Parts: sequence; C-alpha cells; structure tokens
Amino acid sequence: MGRYKLTLEYDGGPYLGWQLQEDGPSVQGRLEAALATLDGGPVRTHVAGRTDTGVHALAQVAHADLRKDLPANRVKDALNALLRPDPIAVLEAEAVGEDFHARFSATGRRYLYRFSDRRADLALEAHRVWRVRGTVDLAAMQAAAQALVGTHDFSTFRDTDCQAASPIKTLDRFDLVAAEGMAGPEVHCHLAARSFLHRQVRSMVGSVVQVGRGSWSLADLVVARDARDRARCGPVAPAHGLYLAGVSYGEG
Amino acid sequence: MGRYKLTLEYDGGPYLGWQLQEDGPSVQGRLEAALATLDGGPVRTHVAGRTDTGVHALAQVAHADLRKDLPANRVKDALNALLRPDPIAVLEAEAVGEDFHARFSATGRRYLYRFSDRRADLALEAHRVWRVRGTVDLAAMQAAAQALVGTHDFSTFRDTDCQAASPIKTLDRFDLVAAEGMAGPEVHCHLAARSFLHRQVRSMVGSVVQVGRGSWSLADLVVARDARDRARCGPVAPAHGLYLAGVSYGEG
Repeated sequence: MGRYKLTLEYDGGPYLGWQLQEDGPSVQGRLEAALATLDGGPVRTHVAGRTDTGVHALAQVAHADLRKDLPANRVKDALNALLRPDPIAVLEAEAVGEDFHARFSATGRRYLYRFSDRRADLALEAHRVWRVRGTVDLAAMQAAAQALVGTHDFSTFRDTDCQAASPIKTLDRFDLVAAEGMAGPEVHCHLAARSFLHRQVRSMVGSVVQVGRGSWSLADLVVARDARDRARCGPVAPAHGLYLAGVSYGEG
Repeated sequence: MGRYKLTLEYDGGPYLGWQLQEDGPSVQGRLEAALATLDGGPVRTHVAGRTDTGVHALAQVAHADLRKDLPANRVKDALNALLRPDPIAVLEAEAVGEDFHARFSATGRRYLYRFSDRRADLALEAHRVWRVRGTVDLAAMQAAAQALVGTHDFSTFRDTDCQAASPIKTLDRFDLVAAEGMAGPEVHCHLAARSFLHRQVRSMVGSVVQVGRGSWSLADLVVARDARDRARCGPVAPAHGLYLAGVSYGEG
C-alpha cells in the first residue's frame, strides 16, 4: 500500500472537465476507473488543478492511495494501457509519502493559453488554439498583462461561482510571446501563480485581448481590474486554448 | 468566369483522403460541395498532391474554374464560411490564368513527418504525431536519410498500387531535426522533391526509423533501397504523422 503522484497529459475536448460528473465523461472518472481495475477496488484521486470542461493539461498532477504495493513504472505503464483509447496519458508516476497532497502541497501552478489572429479558420489546430477575430497588437497586450501581475483583488476576473475564500491573489507571471505553430504564427500566454481563482486565466486573457484589438485601452483594463466587479470583465476566452502546463511542489 | 488557385489546410483525420469517394467523406468532396454552393452549379477541382486517408495538409494547392467572376478574397471568405465546421481552411485564394494547373504546373512538393519516441502514449497529439516504440537515434536516422537523397529507383519505397510511369525520382531533401512540441521532444522530417511516388514518404520514414531503433544498419537501408523490391521496405509509417507542407510553382 502506498501513495502515488501521477503527472498527466490530456486533451480536455471529450470531457466535462477534471471533476467527476454524473452526466458525462470526466478525466477523474476515467482515471479512477483505470485505477480501480489496477488496484482491484475503488480508488479516489486528488488533483492540483480542477480543469473546466474542454481545458487541456500538459502536466496536471494528481495523487492516489493504492492497496497494492507496485513499482511506480508499473503503475504508469498499466494505467496508460488501461486508459486507451482515451486521450489521457500518465507521463510519470512516483511513489510519495503520506504527507504529499497533489492540491494542498502545491506551491505553484503554470498555465499556457494559445491564440491566433489569422484570418482563415483554424483546421488542424481548431480544438487547440483560440482564433481571435480581428488583428491584435502583441506589445500592447504584453504591456496590459503587466498591469495584472502582482497582488490584486481579482474579483473582476473570477467566475461568479468561484468558491475561493478570498479574491486576493498574487500573479507571478503573465507574458505573451510570439510562437510558430503548425497553423502559422500564434501567441502563447505564460501565466504563473501559487493558485488561481475559477476562470481567472480565461477571464484575464479575454480582457487582455480586448486591449490587443484596440477595443480597450490599457487604462480601461486598469479600471476593470480596480472595479472588482465581474460585470467589467472582457469576454472570457474559450476553454480549448487553455492548458494547465505544470504544478510545482516545495521550494520550486 | 475565372480560375482560382486555393491554398488549403486540413486535418486528414475525418476523411478518406483527398480524392472523391463513394463510401465516405473526402476533402475534395467537401470542397467541391462548398464551391458548388458558391458558384451555383457543379465545380471540379484539381490538386497538387492527392493525400491518402488520414494524411494532413498545411498548404495543399488546388485549382477550380468558377462561372462567377469574384474577388479572390471573397472566394476565400465564402468558402471558409461554407466549409464550417469541417476542419478544412482556405488559407489563400488567388485569381490565376488558364495556364495554371495545380498538379501539372507544380515544380516541387514538400512534406513534413512528425514522430516521437516518448514512452507514454500521446494524448494531445495522438492524431498529429506518430509515437514510435522504443527509442531512436537521431544522428543515425539523419545519416540514413542521406542515403535516400538524390536520384534513385524508389521501387522499394512505393506502394504496390502506385500508378507512376517510372519509379525513378530525385529526392532533394530528407532532413530529420529535433523539435519541441506540446507533447515534448519530437522529430520533424522535412522532405522535398519535384514529385513523390505513392506512399513514398511514409515508406522512407518507416525504413529510416528502423535504422534509428537499431533494427537496421545503414548498410541494411542501402541494400533495401538497391533491391528495388517492395518486400524489402520497413514498416510503413502511419498516416496521422504526415503533412503535405507546401507546393512550389515556377522556378521557386
């Protein structure tokens, strides 16, 4: 018997998000079904970041306690075999102590958001990259994003159903960089914080894109931020451009 | 009335290849249906490279003659609207003369093949990148690929149903380079030639990967090439890693 830390990649497209749902498939549901087969009985998982419907993960972290005492590599390979053909992959499995908790031990979360302002519809990357309408100014967006870095009351940028006790968070990084993808030039937004509010990344990206399009000035974004009013948020960016990119533990 | 050159991006996954099929969806079928709606009557397309079932395109080129005389940008935007939600995008439309033929005027074709030797199943890129079993040696594969560059009888590397008059072709480029994708390190194979035989790229990539795995030596690859015997080809690489990357016209 032991606790295992699992690092997961998944395509969020087919799922109603991470969390178990009664009315459709979830990543947690698929993973727990595979774990139950492996371990011969029900297994409960805990996760670092509960991704929404359609949101992807490059390196989500979960943990589970198994009755069986299995080598970590065996857990990884068995889960990957059991998860086929679902687009969920176990990148790493590691035996950890009982003091490790995927959610409560996490000291940092990183997200990636991808968008493109090309004119033609996206074909290959339709479910991977948000195509924004109009053209956007990268330098203006990067400047705007810096107005969100630091410690702020992010009430404007959290979903009304967010259950966090406080809307005050510290955003450590929000950089927008040009990248070349299969579908040509795109923008990668890199965000990092100890933790995020519900829909905070998509709310902030959507608002920064308003600046990039020229619909908002930088001052408008600052006013929206300081209003601490959900009604002042820009249109929330869609789920399919968002990736949970990594989770840090300890000092890292 | 005029001829239009169309540059197309598509996800090959949902289609039985480029060419019209009676028993299922094809890229040509979808495109010709959109053109018929736009032009008010049947329209026939001609294409630079007839991609197989499941093969993608970053920049396929086709041409069509329309009864209507429309601005090229109007053709592009109308087709993109009519093609939704199919994963086919018209990247460019250009009015061209009657002497332009997408297939016969082409002076070069470029292909990209993507594969990864990571151990875990691919989740996000499952339908975009071939996951090869085992680990591969990039330098050995690059050296092997050079044995295929130049003018050769490529009988070993063409499908038995290939209808080309001659198996002799000149391969201008076959480079394998390390790349970083959403799913971590991968290998990008860049190939260029005036034209290719049927399944030539996938046959050559599959054989070069045999060298990368250590299943074949470089000498084995040369023997297979010189045998001019389809039975000596390595396992053909799957369709979902292959992309028609571009088509050249004129001197270019």
